[in-house]
Amino acid sequence: MKMTYTKDAGAIYRESFAIIRAEADLSAFPKDLARVVVRMIHACGMTDLPQYVAASPDATEAGMEALRAGATILCDANMVANGVTRSRLPRNNEVLCTLGDPQTVELAKKLETTRSAAALELWRDKLEGSVVVIGNAPTALFRLLEMLEENAPRPALIIGVPVGFVGAAESKEALMASPLNLPYLTIQGRRGGSAIAAAAVNALASEAE
Amino acid sequence: MKMTYTKDAGAIYRESFAIIRAEADLSAFPKDLARVVVRMIHACGMTDLPQYVAASPDATEAGMEALRAGATILCDANMVANGVTRSRLPRNNEVLCTLGDPQTVELAKKLETTRSAAALELWRDKLEGSVVVIGNAPTALFRLLEMLEENAPRPALIIGVPVGFVGAAESKEALMASPLNLPYLTIQGRRGGSAIAAAAVNALASEAE
Repeated sequence: MKMTYTKDAGAIYRESFAIIRAEADLSAFPKDLARVVVRMIHACGMTDLPQYVAASPDATEAGMEALRAGATILCDANMVANGVTRSRLPRNNEVLCTLGDPQTVELAKKLETTRSAAALELWRDKLEGSVVVIGNAPTALFRLLEMLEENAPRPALIIGVPVGFVGAAESKEALMASPLNLPYLTIQGRRGGSAIAAAAVNALASEAE
Repeated sequence: MKMTYTKDAGAIYRESFAIIRAEADLSAFPKDLARVVVRMIHACGMTDLPQYVAASPDATEAGMEALRAGATILCDANMVANGVTRSRLPRNNEVLCTLGDPQTVELAKKLETTRSAAALELWRDKLEGSVVVIGNAPTALFRLLEMLEENAPRPALIIGVPVGFVGAAESKEALMASPLNLPYLTIQGRRGGSAIAAAAVNALASEAE
């Protein structure tokens, strides 16, 4: 049996994005946000995602500008960091995940929290103007909000799309409802994940499709 | 505003898995497959996944046994390889992704196919008895099926969960319908992805929750 399938990577991308734009309702989004949402859909295969996407005004502009200015990309999980396509980054931006740092294990014990939340202590010097990308752990997003309420430096954009059943929806609601008026991009509810998070970064990093 | 959230990683896992088992209909699956599906759901936040899961008879047993015997884990994407929790692997199994190998770029040009498909040429010596994990590229799954029809050595299990809009559903249908009676685990349709793929490996690698 001969397999017949498209082998041209460029053609596959074009066809994928055309299907997404035909099927997904992107009418609520300005052009750049629509482009970001297309890539998020591409990463998960689900065209119903737009109705759950929420973003602060100018979130995409803030993220794009920060990346062009060389912003560090702070990731809660190695899979997120791994999914960021380095060749799309405008300034060879640093992509940092501190989850596996030996200090993080110690900090988690000391602070009696998850490693994902403790890892953020090592972000403090880098938070100012950064792009924070939380694609896995609700506790990381909760901890970020706590730190910001305690006057930690503000990121340029928070891509907050942790996934799961305990705290994911709640942490994203807290992000949206924050009295700090944070710059954010999120997916309401349980869905999210490292692939969607990395896709959002990749879309903000370059307009190339 | 004080954030209130669970900070005990063990408690978060237990509560997550309890919610999944309460909400998802796992009644169609034997015990080990149910355990694998729970972790796949955990990775994506979607409890409707079971109705799309398909597996050959004894797929989970084959995968668990192969990993216990030291099988190599062959991944189509770095994010998949990155998502495999090394501490869960029973034999410190090799986790290999050849997508970034310099030879792969050359092979893709020569074979006029995607890098994801070309990367499989470098798996040939390792295919026998391996656990193949395709979490990203439909072309990788199509190419694997071609190679197997051309009598390449058989993996012990194929976790075939590429994601997307061009070829994802079709490649998974071809996997299920293969006259070779391949050992497989898949999710029908467009959904899939590296996180779900890695979660399946992590569940097969250890029964610890």
